Amino acid sequence: MLNVAILGASGFTGFECIRLLQYHPDVVISHLFSLRDSNESLVNFTGNDVSFNTTIEHFDPLKNYDIDCLLIALPHTIVHEFMPELIKHTYRIIDLSADFRLNSNDRYRLYYGIDHACESLLSDAVYGLNEYYATKIAQADLVANPGCYAIATILGLKPLTDLGLINHGVVDAKSGVSGAGKALKESNLYANANEHISAYNTNKHRHMAEFEENCPCSMIFSPHLVPMNRGILVSAYLQLSSNHTTESLEQIFQTCYENAPFVSFSSTNTTPSTQDVLGTNRAAISLLNVENSHAIITVAIDNLIKGAAGNAIQTMNLMFGLPEVSGLPLIAQRV
Amino acid sequence: MLNVAILGASGFTGFECIRLLQYHPDVVISHLFSLRDSNESLVNFTGNDVSFNTTIEHFDPLKNYDIDCLLIALPHTIVHEFMPELIKHTYRIIDLSADFRLNSNDRYRLYYGIDHACESLLSDAVYGLNEYYATKIAQADLVANPGCYAIATILGLKPLTDLGLINHGVVDAKSGVSGAGKALKESNLYANANEHISAYNTNKHRHMAEFEENCPCSMIFSPHLVPMNRGILVSAYLQLSSNHTTESLEQIFQTCYENAPFVSFSSTNTTPSTQDVLGTNRAAISLLNVENSHAIITVAIDNLIKGAAGNAIQTMNLMFGLPEVSGLPLIAQRV
Amino acid sequence: MLNVAILGASGFTGFECIRLLQYHPDVVISHLFSLRDSNESLVNFTGNDVSFNTTIEHFDPLKNYDIDCLLIALPHTIVHEFMPELIKHTYRIIDLSADFRLNSNDRYRLYYGIDHACESLLSDAVYGLNEYYATKIAQADLVANPGCYAIATILGLKPLTDLGLINHGVVDAKSGVSGAGKALKESNLYANANEHISAYNTNKHRHMAEFEENCPCSMIFSPHLVPMNRGILVSAYLQLSSNHTTESLEQIFQTCYENAPFVSFSSTNTTPSTQDVLGTNRAAISLLNVENSHAIITVAIDNLIKGAAGNAIQTMNLMFGLPEVSGLPLIAQRV
Amino acid sequence: MLNVAILGASGFTGFECIRLLQYHPDVVISHLFSLRDSNESLVNFTGNDVSFNTTIEHFDPLKNYDIDCLLIALPHTIVHEFMPELIKHTYRIIDLSADFRLNSNDRYRLYYGIDHACESLLSDAVYGLNEYYATKIAQADLVANPGCYAIATILGLKPLTDLGLINHGVVDAKSGVSGAGKALKESNLYANANEHISAYNTNKHRHMAEFEENCPCSMIFSPHLVPMNRGILVSAYLQLSSNHTTESLEQIFQTCYENAPFVSFSSTNTTPSTQDVLGTNRAAISLLNVENSHAIITVAIDNLIKGAAGNAIQTMNLMFGLPEVSGLPLIAQRV
Repeated sequence: MLNVAILGASGFTGFECIRLLQYHPDVVISHLFSLRDSNESLVNFTGNDVSFNTTIEHFDPLKNYDIDCLLIALPHTIVHEFMPELIKHTYRIIDLSADFRLNSNDRYRLYYGIDHACESLLSDAVYGLNEYYATKIAQADLVANPGCYAIATILGLKPLTDLGLINHGVVDAKSGVSGAGKALKESNLYANANEHISAYNTNKHRHMAEFEENCPCSMIFSPHLVPMNRGILVSAYLQLSSNHTTESLEQIFQTCYENAPFVSFSSTNTTPSTQDVLGTNRAAISLLNVENSHAIITVAIDNLIKGAAGNAIQTMNLMFGLPEVSGLPLIAQRV
Repeated sequence: MLNVAILGASGFTGFECIRLLQYHPDVVISHLFSLRDSNESLVNFTGNDVSFNTTIEHFDPLKNYDIDCLLIALPHTIVHEFMPELIKHTYRIIDLSADFRLNSNDRYRLYYGIDHACESLLSDAVYGLNEYYATKIAQADLVANPGCYAIATILGLKPLTDLGLINHGVVDAKSGVSGAGKALKESNLYANANEHISAYNTNKHRHMAEFEENCPCSMIFSPHLVPMNRGILVSAYLQLSSNHTTESLEQIFQTCYENAPFVSFSSTNTTPSTQDVLGTNRAAISLLNVENSHAIITVAIDNLIKGAAGNAIQTMNLMFGLPEVSGLPLIAQRV
Repeated sequence: MLNVAILGASGFTGFECIRLLQYHPDVVISHLFSLRDSNESLVNFTGNDVSFNTTIEHFDPLKNYDIDCLLIALPHTIVHEFMPELIKHTYRIIDLSADFRLNSNDRYRLYYGIDHACESLLSDAVYGLNEYYATKIAQADLVANPGCYAIATILGLKPLTDLGLINHGVVDAKSGVSGAGKALKESNLYANANEHISAYNTNKHRHMAEFEENCPCSMIFSPHLVPMNRGILVSAYLQLSSNHTTESLEQIFQTCYENAPFVSFSSTNTTPSTQDVLGTNRAAISLLNVENSHAIITVAIDNLIKGAAGNAIQTMNLMFGLPEVSGLPLIAQRV
Repeated sequence: MLNVAILGASGFTGFECIRLLQYHPDVVISHLFSLRDSNESLVNFTGNDVSFNTTIEHFDPLKNYDIDCLLIALPHTIVHEFMPELIKHTYRIIDLSADFRLNSNDRYRLYYGIDHACESLLSDAVYGLNEYYATKIAQADLVANPGCYAIATILGLKPLTDLGLINHGVVDAKSGVSGAGKALKESNLYANANEHISAYNTNKHRHMAEFEENCPCSMIFSPHLVPMNRGILVSAYLQLSSNHTTESLEQIFQTCYENAPFVSFSSTNTTPSTQDVLGTNRAAISLLNVENSHAIITVAIDNLIKGAAGNAIQTMNLMFGLPEVSGLPLIAQRV
């Protein structure tokens, strides 16, 4: 049994790690950690009959806890400060923050506004794109879990960018509000976010840095906030580099993901909804409307699972030689 | 034409005053005020073609602005500090905060936790219960607009408490989230308030102080937060002091509200929904299920209109001798 | 005073006409009509104190009612059957259905799947795009009110297509659920539509027929259903025919809409949200991110007002020589 | 391994059974059944990598399928027609419809409007109240799963009614919309149910029949529909038969549920929210405000899990000698 601890256990993503791990047959939850000195308990959300201690402990970066894996679910620009201490320890780390997703300090500074505190570690960290980098992930001691928009977009575009097939494109993305976590901002208030839709950070969103490194192409990225808790829908309108038949494009996706248990590619005429994948670690991808060298790729994920906690656990499975699907939900919640 | 100014124009309630007054045939909006030095403009919400200045000005309590009426939409425990200055001016005041709703400092201290800064003004302020206190309101220089839960509950219970017919009761109230205004609290975040219902402040809510003064009876009050923007539904389960026929109770309500243009009493077998009154200044009241001296009174209002801005404008109409319904919506929004 | 009747009064759009007309200083609501023999009353939504009869009467197409204007809010493919009778009467007609929006039976058959029953009337009907066709509208006896997606998209693109500036583009649109009216389909059920987003009818939506006639350009149109009651946000990603400065494009929009009281063009760096225009007859348009001959136009409207009932009343104002803004809301609801 | 089949697999409750069983370590899903001849597939919601056949087969009541347990998730008044055939087979049955919950045809006719087709089976069916009837459930061949309002209310009241402590009470219940299933009614449409709250079926709801049999007391029951997908909150305002200390009442609940892994009783001053139990099989119960022989009991459940599919699987665990908690979620979803 793996001993796993979660740092940032009271946030939405950290708690989602806990919730998913309750079903994992090979994991024991050893500690729930916070950087703050909280002693907060999560018992209201778990009841008394779970097998782990629901009280959140203060985390000490200098201490070598007797665990196999640490999942870090903290806001970005915090983790890089103490990562040089953490990697000295014997446990392996999956960082769900943005701090180790990029390869270069230049891009980190550009998108996050500060210099990276341990630039040298950037090249050691593996980007947790399980469907593509499984071999490197299996051997990594530090994996950076992708951003929610990033993983949805990359899974949809990378089969084509890897072959150089995209000339340019527009990615119009729609996300539920949980992606903003618990940030106390007016735009996150119920009365402001409900019955409301708007674009934000057009062509400036930080997850674009991850596209640039993993599926580079000329792209406009326009994220929108929609009034629901969970789910991301990415609609990518692509100008291909030349004409392609629907069949040839379908073949590319099918080959690319034939061994990917969490990617559902549909070559039918329907596009996925976020409810098709709600509560699962799946990404549902569809291909539509290819004509005159245009294609529309639609990708749906649950932003807290495939876009965060679930993908991280899939990574953990790969790192520790467990079955890739172990403990992870495949069946959607629908309601 | 009345010259009206709004203090607290950027809050939900203050803005709702502005929005409703756009339809008022007898009003000119003279100033939008804030206590802060903001110079914020509301033009995004109004467009450029409205007839008033959409920039919010700093308010000076010492200045006697050339207006007829000031609507104050600030959080409670702020207004009482400078009201002694305001009442020296020539304009009349409708205060939508809680600071002048109660008759005694004792009750104010009990429910709001601080001493009232100008206790002597409490008896001068008239409680803005238009359906009952219209005569006093017509002559008042300072009217305190009722709380949202308070007005819904009082309109439902007062016909019976005025006759001493209620022995005791339970009021289970459900409110949309806009009642919390723009307070930056975790419980007001979309991801926490959406897909969530809970009770809060059971038997401790501050609006109870208003029931006690205006429709006293032995009562349990239990408010609940429900995931919608607007609307309050009050379900009052009443043990009557003796047996009454449905017809006699209906007669009481019909007589009580026959001249009240904003109260819709239904003696049919259906209970109102919040959509029946959404966007209106109406209160829809129903009476159900009278047996063994029990009655169920249900009241629906739009918490930002009859529960706040609309009722205040109705008060303004009464204060200045305008038709009571002038400028106020009667027809529900449904969707 | 104009005598106005509404046919289809119990639907969302028909009722929205009634609700908006309550504020109109120059209108008397004469009749509420239905094609069915309902005798249904809308009193639950209006209370008893409105000045018109809330009972819905059976409509007889052969009868020449003593009214000035008939607003028709019925589903498409019904109205064309009896329009030849209606136009014989003395009143003027604004049809909010889709049946008279197009110029040709070919396009009607292509998008609506049946032959038009009175093709000869198609050229008589004026398309109710008030910002462009006001002169023709003022003289028309039959005006076809634009579709909700159509008016938002056309207002955003027509300033550029009229100058031939758009090479091709992608329009990704997001709509609240009220656009579907009361159709009893599984996809319209709360439990299916809530916490759900999906694309539908990509490149096949019927409103595209209206773009083709009023702002022709090569375009992908992809509508999405989002979980909210009201509002449409159109995000148009445009490849321009040549390079243009931001300033020159802004100038085009400002000139085009300088006399349009319901169009708010913003040349700042923010994009509109649906809350900016909720409850109003306004369209908020922004221009963003012009580089390498790309522009992003964003348009927000309230789909039941500027996208339906409000625009129709604006048309009525133009037809009868009333001030264009008479009775129509400019100030957003926000919450 | 148990071989389990689900009849009514395409409904919300039937699908929830499937979704929960994906985590069950002791279960194989053998068949998905429908009474209709559909051949519909659920693969959109499951992906291709689940271990069972996602195509829904036509169910033949006369056929003795080689399964251990049949979960029936059909609407009420259908199942009783063919249950006499089913009970001849070798498999055991858990019926999630209402048809076998009651002991007498009289009460069935009163609440469901028709005569029961196999009255003699009513006394054989065990009511699936696992926390109280575990011994009988372990031996039963036919268990009727409780209604969603019923199980929440009974778990909250039965500790007191079993001791005769409740004089009378009011139960004000609030439910998300998924309880209505996929019924195509106007009130279930998104645009009608969203931003809307109302009472319905006051003192007439069919689940009251289950209270009467399992926790009889004089009670007003008032259910409300609130705009969310999942969750029930029951607020019970109780007049006790005599004075009781808070401590003595807490002791009753703690004793009653000390061995109930899915009941979380809280004696603190907070009341549960539906998010505390969202996605779990738990019922969170709190006790508040005891004075003058009044108590307020609040109960929160997930209506599709503890109120339907989860409780049925808990029953299945008891029937087949598996650990009671096997495969069932304890940790709430929060978002």
